[in-house]
Amino acid sequence: MMSDALYEVLQLAGILAFAISGALVGVRRRLDLLGVIVVGSFTGVGGGIIRDMLLGVHPPVSFTHWPNLAVAVGGAFAVFFIHPGITRIRYFEVVFDAFGLGLFSANGAVVAFLSGESPLTAILVGTITAIGGGVIRDVLVNTVPGVLTRELYAVSALLGAGIAVGIAALDGSAWLGSLVGGAAAIVLRLTSVARGWHLPKPRFSGPGEDPSADREG
Amino acid sequence: MMSDALYEVLQLAGILAFAISGALVGVRRRLDLLGVIVVGSFTGVGGGIIRDMLLGVHPPVSFTHWPNLAVAVGGAFAVFFIHPGITRIRYFEVVFDAFGLGLFSANGAVVAFLSGESPLTAILVGTITAIGGGVIRDVLVNTVPGVLTRELYAVSALLGAGIAVGIAALDGSAWLGSLVGGAAAIVLRLTSVARGWHLPKPRFSGPGEDPSADREG
Amino acid sequence: MMSDALYEVLQLAGILAFAISGALVGVRRRLDLLGVIVVGSFTGVGGGIIRDMLLGVHPPVSFTHWPNLAVAVGGAFAVFFIHPGITRIRYFEVVFDAFGLGLFSANGAVVAFLSGESPLTAILVGTITAIGGGVIRDVLVNTVPGVLTRELYAVSALLGAGIAVGIAALDGSAWLGSLVGGAAAIVLRLTSVARGWHLPKPRFSGPGEDPSADREG
Repeated sequence: MMSDALYEVLQLAGILAFAISGALVGVRRRLDLLGVIVVGSFTGVGGGIIRDMLLGVHPPVSFTHWPNLAVAVGGAFAVFFIHPGITRIRYFEVVFDAFGLGLFSANGAVVAFLSGESPLTAILVGTITAIGGGVIRDVLVNTVPGVLTRELYAVSALLGAGIAVGIAALDGSAWLGSLVGGAAAIVLRLTSVARGWHLPKPRFSGPGEDPSADREG
Repeated sequence: MMSDALYEVLQLAGILAFAISGALVGVRRRLDLLGVIVVGSFTGVGGGIIRDMLLGVHPPVSFTHWPNLAVAVGGAFAVFFIHPGITRIRYFEVVFDAFGLGLFSANGAVVAFLSGESPLTAILVGTITAIGGGVIRDVLVNTVPGVLTRELYAVSALLGAGIAVGIAALDGSAWLGSLVGGAAAIVLRLTSVARGWHLPKPRFSGPGEDPSADREG
Repeated sequence: MMSDALYEVLQLAGILAFAISGALVGVRRRLDLLGVIVVGSFTGVGGGIIRDMLLGVHPPVSFTHWPNLAVAVGGAFAVFFIHPGITRIRYFEVVFDAFGLGLFSANGAVVAFLSGESPLTAILVGTITAIGGGVIRDVLVNTVPGVLTRELYAVSALLGAGIAVGIAALDGSAWLGSLVGGAAAIVLRLTSVARGWHLPKPRFSGPGEDPSADREG
């Protein structure tokens, strides 16, 4: 599954990007070194573990393919010592999260498709893979996952997975699908953030509740 | 596994009920259209995905059997546009959640039993399946899962799973077990809410903490 | 997998310890009897279920090996009626959590190693198994998991898993590895709490955020 070198690079790049985004959240929450490494590495490899459990790959690749964990732990470790000030940290969180989202959605979809799943199943698996790491990160630090509240987050993952599967289906090239699909997802995600693109919110009488409220009251 | 038409209907009804309950929570939390669809569809298919991962069905049925996801997404989509006012939304949440709980507990238990698990294992799987969707929904929106705090929630799921397995064991009829077991769970759950049936709470000196408090302080 | 009697005892001891720690949290949060049993039993068997899903054991052992669930439910049930006052409950939470952490890290690693995984994979699986139960407990009650914030929590699990695999690799004795590895993890964890050993926290200008803050604001 990891034969292609460029494909492997894209996979590790996604893990690194998510690990960095998770570690940045840990730094902002003032976790200690271990906490930062745990949340960073779980964020980095979490999505892939969910993908493997959905596809029945036991044990998950990240438990047997040491580069995955090494990159995740190394990225989190580095962030602990090298990170921007609190005022700019959120910006970097969004950027690295977007790269992780894009690379994982495309990679996850391609992995599932090449393992014989139908295009629809592959796209779903890729989207879950991409969303999974961020959900683990946000649930661990006790936040409403960004996928529920951020600009076109799930749509970007769906787009990346769809393009990746489409390309892989046409010429069977895993790395090209991952590259183009991932890039498309990253561009859409970052553009939606820059432009503040949001989908409509429900309208009803009464104040409703802020999604950033902790409790259903 | 999906041979019986009525059984399939019950399965989809449970998915729809949970998807609606999840989407209603999303609406109340003022998530945008995508957020409502994500939390709604995860809630709808989440329990079944947990069941399939426990039983080793790869990939989970909801990833390959398109009606499941279509019903979940469609239900959430409809709720976004058609929903009661904020003042009455909680009432509908409880009712649809109860239907999802009942149908999933019975269906999950029957699926596990017919796949060759022991009655005890089947009942446990059914209960986890039923509780799973709601836990995913509540954890996603950052709330203490209702199973820990709501009236006879887990007991209703256990009852539904037990009755369903009992019936399936006697005459091997999956749909009858799902129907009767599911109905029993729904009735017990809704009755416990209407009557405010609660089990005793621990007694000790000191104020203790409110389960609705976010943090352990 | 459960052939050795002493090994089985260690396994059940870990489940009991985690179930007690989960039930104590439930009592402190004033959950009712059912809530206490649910959070307690999920905490007790949760880590093992995660381990089995990672290793592809379907259904998880705790769903088919009734003593596991019996011990978890029984422990939670007992805690509901017999527990210290609110002022001392936290102390007992930490102690029982440490025993669960130690026993699970060693047991999980040994189970994975004896099932043919590489030492590295086995150590990772053991660590995840040990951390899993506590994460489930903390996420259920809507708290930032202790593994992110507590003294040498993950390190203790890694140490226990490493020692257990080392011993099992040398003389193939599962129970000895579980015993020594588990003891080492418990000692390190409790010592780090008693001494307040912490790893350094990130330094940056600005106030940062308290990890115990609920929301990323």
